[in-house]
Amino acid sequence: MRSTLRSFDLAHLAHVELLTPKPEESLNFFVNIMGMTETARRGDSVYLRGWDDYEHHTLKLTASKTAGMGHVAWRATSPEALERRAAIIEHAGFGKGWHDGDLGHGRTFAFNTTDGHNMELYYETEWYEAPPELKPSLKNHAMRFPARGCNVRRLDHLNLLTSNVTELRVFLEEVVGLRTTEMIVLDSGVEAGAWLTATNKTYDIAFTLDHYRARGRFHHFTYALDSREEVLRAADIFLENDVYIETGPHKHAVQQTFFLYVYEPGGNRVEVSNAGARLMLAPDWQPIVWTETERKKGQAWGLKTIESFHTHGTPPIEEYTGPRNDVSSVDPG
Amino acid sequence: MRSTLRSFDLAHLAHVELLTPKPEESLNFFVNIMGMTETARRGDSVYLRGWDDYEHHTLKLTASKTAGMGHVAWRATSPEALERRAAIIEHAGFGKGWHDGDLGHGRTFAFNTTDGHNMELYYETEWYEAPPELKPSLKNHAMRFPARGCNVRRLDHLNLLTSNVTELRVFLEEVVGLRTTEMIVLDSGVEAGAWLTATNKTYDIAFTLDHYRARGRFHHFTYALDSREEVLRAADIFLENDVYIETGPHKHAVQQTFFLYVYEPGGNRVEVSNAGARLMLAPDWQPIVWTETERKKGQAWGLKTIESFHTHGTPPIEEYTGPRNDVSSVDPG
Amino acid sequence: MRSTLRSFDLAHLAHVELLTPKPEESLNFFVNIMGMTETARRGDSVYLRGWDDYEHHTLKLTASKTAGMGHVAWRATSPEALERRAAIIEHAGFGKGWHDGDLGHGRTFAFNTTDGHNMELYYETEWYEAPPELKPSLKNHAMRFPARGCNVRRLDHLNLLTSNVTELRVFLEEVVGLRTTEMIVLDSGVEAGAWLTATNKTYDIAFTLDHYRARGRFHHFTYALDSREEVLRAADIFLENDVYIETGPHKHAVQQTFFLYVYEPGGNRVEVSNAGARLMLAPDWQPIVWTETERKKGQAWGLKTIESFHTHGTPPIEEYTGPRNDVSSVDPG
Amino acid sequence: MRSTLRSFDLAHLAHVELLTPKPEESLNFFVNIMGMTETARRGDSVYLRGWDDYEHHTLKLTASKTAGMGHVAWRATSPEALERRAAIIEHAGFGKGWHDGDLGHGRTFAFNTTDGHNMELYYETEWYEAPPELKPSLKNHAMRFPARGCNVRRLDHLNLLTSNVTELRVFLEEVVGLRTTEMIVLDSGVEAGAWLTATNKTYDIAFTLDHYRARGRFHHFTYALDSREEVLRAADIFLENDVYIETGPHKHAVQQTFFLYVYEPGGNRVEVSNAGARLMLAPDWQPIVWTETERKKGQAWGLKTIESFHTHGTPPIEEYTGPRNDVSSVDPG
Repeated sequence: MRSTLRSFDLAHLAHVELLTPKPEESLNFFVNIMGMTETARRGDSVYLRGWDDYEHHTLKLTASKTAGMGHVAWRATSPEALERRAAIIEHAGFGKGWHDGDLGHGRTFAFNTTDGHNMELYYETEWYEAPPELKPSLKNHAMRFPARGCNVRRLDHLNLLTSNVTELRVFLEEVVGLRTTEMIVLDSGVEAGAWLTATNKTYDIAFTLDHYRARGRFHHFTYALDSREEVLRAADIFLENDVYIETGPHKHAVQQTFFLYVYEPGGNRVEVSNAGARLMLAPDWQPIVWTETERKKGQAWGLKTIESFHTHGTPPIEEYTGPRNDVSSVDPG
Repeated sequence: MRSTLRSFDLAHLAHVELLTPKPEESLNFFVNIMGMTETARRGDSVYLRGWDDYEHHTLKLTASKTAGMGHVAWRATSPEALERRAAIIEHAGFGKGWHDGDLGHGRTFAFNTTDGHNMELYYETEWYEAPPELKPSLKNHAMRFPARGCNVRRLDHLNLLTSNVTELRVFLEEVVGLRTTEMIVLDSGVEAGAWLTATNKTYDIAFTLDHYRARGRFHHFTYALDSREEVLRAADIFLENDVYIETGPHKHAVQQTFFLYVYEPGGNRVEVSNAGARLMLAPDWQPIVWTETERKKGQAWGLKTIESFHTHGTPPIEEYTGPRNDVSSVDPG
Repeated sequence: MRSTLRSFDLAHLAHVELLTPKPEESLNFFVNIMGMTETARRGDSVYLRGWDDYEHHTLKLTASKTAGMGHVAWRATSPEALERRAAIIEHAGFGKGWHDGDLGHGRTFAFNTTDGHNMELYYETEWYEAPPELKPSLKNHAMRFPARGCNVRRLDHLNLLTSNVTELRVFLEEVVGLRTTEMIVLDSGVEAGAWLTATNKTYDIAFTLDHYRARGRFHHFTYALDSREEVLRAADIFLENDVYIETGPHKHAVQQTFFLYVYEPGGNRVEVSNAGARLMLAPDWQPIVWTETERKKGQAWGLKTIESFHTHGTPPIEEYTGPRNDVSSVDPG
Repeated sequence: MRSTLRSFDLAHLAHVELLTPKPEESLNFFVNIMGMTETARRGDSVYLRGWDDYEHHTLKLTASKTAGMGHVAWRATSPEALERRAAIIEHAGFGKGWHDGDLGHGRTFAFNTTDGHNMELYYETEWYEAPPELKPSLKNHAMRFPARGCNVRRLDHLNLLTSNVTELRVFLEEVVGLRTTEMIVLDSGVEAGAWLTATNKTYDIAFTLDHYRARGRFHHFTYALDSREEVLRAADIFLENDVYIETGPHKHAVQQTFFLYVYEPGGNRVEVSNAGARLMLAPDWQPIVWTETERKKGQAWGLKTIESFHTHGTPPIEEYTGPRNDVSSVDPG
C-alpha cells in the first residue's frame, strides 16, 4: 500500500537553516572542525557546504537569540513536480505561499508541518562552481577535498522532535510524498518515532516524541563521512577541540547508522555518521516496526543512550513543569 | 534535458544470471570465498544472494559450455510501471515477450539490448525470509552476517561490453528509462563508455567498447562491501585462496569506486567494491564527460590498468583475427 | 630511573591458560566466533592460536569447575635470560620450581605473583608449522588468514585484578623485569591500576584493584585485530551470535586502545582490540600517571563504563559481604 | 644464531636529515600536506615532527644543492649502551668521532656505513613539550592531533640503496647490533635486499641494490599512519595537491606493509604506510628469505611495480653510462 504513495516529487533533503546565539563560534566549528566551506554571507547568515555537496549550500547558519532550526528545504525532482507538490500541500491547508528563493536557489514554496516546523520546496538551484584554488583533481566531485578537521562530505539527514509522531508521519507520507522505512510503536500503541525517505537512502528525515510535549523543535542534522574510520577520527578531533561529545561513536539499532553526536557552540546537536553500503532499493519496502521491548535493549551493540539524547532539543526548554512524554525507549537516531 | 527523461519506472538492478563451465568450482567460489548464501537449486542453476540482498536471489549461477552472462533482470517500481515500460520497449521493437518468471519472481517481460544482451523486467518478487538459524539480530537487515569469506553485502552493478556505446546508451536512456551519469568520449567523437543509473547510486550499469568488436559480451558484475577496509581484506582472502586478482584494490577515476577485480573459476570477471557516501541525489545531474587525454592518466591515484582489463570479456573470444577497437584509454570500471 | 631497570630478559607475553566450566561452548566460541585454530588436545585442554601467532599456542583452554585463569606464560629472550631471570625470581622468594614444559614449549620456571597469580617463564618453543591446507600465500605470516568469525590475529595482552596494585607493580618491575608505562593513582595516594610492558607495545599486562579485595583473579585477555574497522565488525559478529557484549567498541583514555569486551560462554571476559600505530619506542618513557579526577571523565570519547566492568572477574565471587574497594574511577583497560 | 647477536643497544630509529634543493616547497609539503609540525629552525635547516613523535624532531629538512639524505640517527637504550656501541663501531673502523649533538639531542657518535651513508648515535634527548595551544586532550600522546593534511603520526623506517647488500647487512647486524627479519637472495646467490630491526617493529631500516651501482644513496623514509583507511585518504590528498604518486596504495609482499610512495618537491621519495597489528615479538626470528622467482610475482596482490621504484634514488644520477645491477625482481619496500 505504502509504495503506491511514492510520489517521486521530492529529489532530496536540500539544506537546513540553523539558528545560533553564538554565530562566530558556530561558524568556526563548522568551518574549522567540521571542515565545511563558506560560499556566501548575507545579513545575519553564512552559507556553508560539505566538500561534495553539489548545491550552493546545505547549511545556512543564522545568528539568532536562541538555538534551533530556522527552516528545512527540499529540492523537487522537476519544475512540474514542484508545482504539483506545492498544490497538494496548499490544498491540504499547510501552505504558506511562494517566495523568490534565497542565495543559491530560485522560486520557493513555504509550508508548515503538522507540528509547526518550517519547510520549503524548490526546484531551481545554483550548482556549486569551485573557484580555481578549490577545483578538484577528479571532476566528478564538487570541490577539492579540504583535508581540514572532520572533512564532512554531504548533508545526510535531519532529525526533529514532535508533539505527535503519527500526525507528522502521515502528513509527510500523504501530503509531502515521503516513504516510511522504520518506526517505533510503544506498547500503548502510540507511535514514538518514524524514519522517512525521499530517496534510496534509508532515511532523509526522522522524528520522535518530544519529552516536553513541545511543538516544532529540532533534534539534530547529520553530515555523512565516507567511512566508520572517519567517524572515529572525528571523535578524536572533537575531543582535541573541546567539542562536547554527547554519545557515540556507536551503531544505532534503528537504521544501523554509525553515529557520533556533538553539540555545536550554539547548543544545537550535530551528528556525523556513516551508513556503509546500506540502501533502500526495494520500491515496496514495508516499514520495520520496533516495539518498546526491542528498543529498551539500547543501541545495536548494547550502548545505553544517555538521558540528554532523549530530552535535549533546540530551542532549549527551561523551567518546564508540565506533563512529559516518557521517551526512555525512544531513540531519535 | 536528460532529467525530463527520468522515468522512475525501474527500481533497481535485480539479478544476473552467470554462465559457468565449472559449476562446482564457481559455486564454491561464491559461497565460501565471496560469502554468499544459496537459496535454491533448479535444473542446472543455483540461486544465491548476499547477506543483505532483500530478494530471493541476486545471482543465478547456471552450468554452461562457456562463461558469460545469461541475462540481467531489473525490478520495476510498481505493477503499473512494469506494464508501461514493457509497452515502451515492445513498441521500440526490442521485446521478446512475457513469461511466467522464475524462482523468486513473477511475471516477466524479456527484451534484448541494441547489442543483443538479454534483459528482463518484473515487479512481483519473493522477499527473502531467513530460516531460523540465519535470522539476523537486528530485524532491519535481511540475514545474519555470515562472517565467512568476503561477506559481500548486496549486488551493486553490472558491466557489459558492447559493439556500439552510443546505441546502447540511447536505448537504455530513452527506451529503458535510465539516466547517464558519466561517459567517455574519444577525441574522434566516438563514445567509448557510459555509466547509467536507475537509482540514487551513481551507476547501476556500465558498458564500454568491446576490443574485439563483438556483440553482447559481459565484462563483470559487482557486489558491494561496507568499507574500503573490507575490500582490502577481500584481496587477502582472494590471495589466500588462489583466486586470480586481475587489478586493484585501487580507486577508479570514473565514478571513484574503490575496486578489486578477480576471475571466478568459470572465467567470468567479478568485482567487490565500496563507494563510501557518494550518491547521485541531484535530479538534473549532467553527465560527466571524460576525454581521451583524461582517461590516459590511469586510475585515480595513477595506477596503469593491465591489458586484460580492456580485452577480457565472457564468453571469451579465441583466435580472433579481424579488426579491433582501440580501448587503451577506455576503462570499464 | 625506571629505564635502568629494563632487563630485556622477557621477550613477550606467550600464552594464557583459561579455565572454563563450559568447555564445548567455549571452544566453539574461540574457534568459530573468534576465528582461532586448534593445534592440539591433551587431557582436559585444547590448545589454540590466532592466525599470526608464531608459537604452538597462545591459548590453552582447560575444562574446570569454575571460570578463571590457570596460568600465564612469558617467553624469555634467550636461554641465558631464562636462567638469569629465574634465579632473580627464585631469590626473591616467588619461585615454584622448574618443570618440563607443556605441549609447544620446553623447560619452564613457575612462579607466583605477589597476588598469587600463576606465572611461568620459558625459552624453548615450538614454532607453529601450518599443515598444507593452511599454508599462507605469503610466507611471512604464520598461517592462512581464516576468513571465519572475527579473525583474531595474535595474543596482545593480559589484564588481572589484584588486592594490591603497588606490590604487584613493583614485583613485575623489579623482579620480573617489566616497565610501567601508565598508572592510576587515587587522591588517597593508593595506586589503583598499572600497565606494564616487556616490549615496544605500550603494555603486555595490566592490573587494577579488585573491588572485592580478592587475590589472584583474572579480568580479561585480549587478541589484536588489524584495524578498528575489524573491531567494529567483530561487534556485529558477536551480536549475531548472541555473545554478551559488555562494553565498547570505544577508545580507552588510558593507553588509547580501541576496545570491545565480551564474555565467552564460560564466563571469562575477552577483548578484541586495535592500537593503530602507537608504540612505546622511548627507552626512558616515564609512566603517565592518571589522577582520580581525570579517570572520572570516562573513556576517551566520554563513554561511562558500566558497573560490571569494574567488578566482574573470574573466578566469580558470590555472596561476598565484606569490605570493598571503591573502583568507580578505575578503568581496567 | 642470529638471536645471540641481538644487542638491545639501539632503542629505535630517531631522525633523518633530508636534503632538498627546494626548501620552501619541501617545507610546505611536510607541514601542510603531510601534516607535520615545525619545532625549530637553525641555519639552513627546519626541524619537524609527526603528531606523536616524542622527541624534538624526527625530520631535519636542510636546504642543499641536491636532494638526498644528510644523515640518519639512532637513539641508544641507555648512556652505557651508547658508550658500548660507539666503542664497537669505532673498533670496527667505521667511527667518525663524537660531537656535541644538535637541536634536540646531546652528545653524538658519528659513523659511516660500509656504503658511506652517514649515521649517528646518541642517548640524551629533548622530549617534545607541546605549547599550550597544541596540548593534547589525552596526556599519553605527544601533541594535539593536527587534523591537517595526511596527519602522519610518527617516523617509521628508512630505506637506502647500496652497492653491496651483504656488506651493509653484516655491518648493521654485527657492528651496529640490528636483527635481520627478511631478505631477498637472487638465484645467483647475490643478496639483493635486506630488512633489519632494532625493535619489535618488523623493520626500522631496509636497503636494496642500487641499480646504478652507486654508493650511499637514499631510497625513502616512511611515516606511519594509524590505519589503511588513512593511507587511502592520503592518496586523495596527494592527488588534490598535485603531489606525484609513484606507486600504491598497495600491500608489499615483503613485510606486508600497506604502502603509498610519493615524491616531495625536492625530489626525495617519501612513504606513508600502515602495518596493522603485525609485530616481531619472537626473539629468535629467522630471516624470511625471498627468492628471485617469488619476488617476480609483484606485490602482495599482484601489482607490478613501476620502473622508477627500482631506479630512482637521491641524489639523482644523471647521464650514467656504466654497468648496472638488474634490480627488476628487487623491491625496496
